[in-house]
Amino acid sequence: MSDSTKYPVRTDRAPVPVARFSQAVAKGGLLAVAGQMGFDPETGAPVGPGLAEQVHQSMRNLQTVLAEGGATFDDVIMVRVYLTDTDHFAEFNRLYDSWFENTPGGAYPARTTVYVGLPAGLLVEIDALAVIG
Amino acid sequence: MSDSTKYPVRTDRAPVPVARFSQAVAKGGLLAVAGQMGFDPETGAPVGPGLAEQVHQSMRNLQTVLAEGGATFDDVIMVRVYLTDTDHFAEFNRLYDSWFENTPGGAYPARTTVYVGLPAGLLVEIDALAVIG
Amino acid sequence: MSDSTKYPVRTDRAPVPVARFSQAVAKGGLLAVAGQMGFDPETGAPVGPGLAEQVHQSMRNLQTVLAEGGATFDDVIMVRVYLTDTDHFAEFNRLYDSWFENTPGGAYPARTTVYVGLPAGLLVEIDALAVIG
Repeated sequence: MSDSTKYPVRTDRAPVPVARFSQAVAKGGLLAVAGQMGFDPETGAPVGPGLAEQVHQSMRNLQTVLAEGGATFDDVIMVRVYLTDTDHFAEFNRLYDSWFENTPGGAYPARTTVYVGLPAGLLVEIDALAVIG
Repeated sequence: MSDSTKYPVRTDRAPVPVARFSQAVAKGGLLAVAGQMGFDPETGAPVGPGLAEQVHQSMRNLQTVLAEGGATFDDVIMVRVYLTDTDHFAEFNRLYDSWFENTPGGAYPARTTVYVGLPAGLLVEIDALAVIG
Repeated sequence: MSDSTKYPVRTDRAPVPVARFSQAVAKGGLLAVAGQMGFDPETGAPVGPGLAEQVHQSMRNLQTVLAEGGATFDDVIMVRVYLTDTDHFAEFNRLYDSWFENTPGGAYPARTTVYVGLPAGLLVEIDALAVIG
């Protein structure tokens, strides 16, 4: 069956992986999207020092990779958010919520948010699991 | 097909999300449950300063959200545990294990445990992925 | 249907869980693999202080558990990597990439890498979600 084949997503319109992993991969009706950070896909550099720029770029990258895999945020069931500072939580939520203003039926993805370390200057990483079958 | 629709879980008997995410969402036979912490759904406040109270409340919240989505711990394939102190590991395992005393065939979910930062006073966050299809 | 049953993986050739979780569990065409660290399954002790030894042992343990569940790295859609030091990222990628030299069509799993705390002496934890249906 076609959905038992694994399809990688590759696009220059989102940050290119620096190791042997895919931006996303589809198999069996699932689309797993790699953690996205605030890198500008054109320059390869972080978009800016601020949380807002990094969150929106991370979400744009997620959206681009999802689209390349035939999905939208409406197909996402789980989002994992990795922040680096608990003081960012309230602002992060405002930024995040702006991406889900038009979700049909309020069927937002589930989400887990934890606070981790990231490479210097990076404030947020976000990944997603979508059902596209 | 019905399972290609995304169904959000909403219940007042578990902590209400503070942003645009669902307590859980079902699609394509999967039920993804958002990270649960030791919040009392009635008061919205943490249940207590101790690990035991917080772990049991987190697990109760998980169980409540799973149930609202038509699932039990027996349907869960993966649990992610976020602790804040490596010294909590042994006690956490004792508390966690008490929730799986009657798992049929010892078919416990897989689990990953890591140590992260959480908002002040919170010691544990737990999420789950269940297969309900 | 058979795939609605949950099948746990149990093997002595990978580290034995210290609590009520499975090394991996299959249900509904998915195989969720618990976080693997650099423990030698024969001795139960960490394989060595260095990153290289721990990464390769973690990957061997993952591979063993996947195999016991009827899967290979080619079936994995998502890998989660937990490192403890951002300075390990470049070396980690070299070690990780060596496990994916022969991936058909470059269909590597997606991956998220974050930096967390782990018990003393442990430098890396890796888990995986595979589609085997």
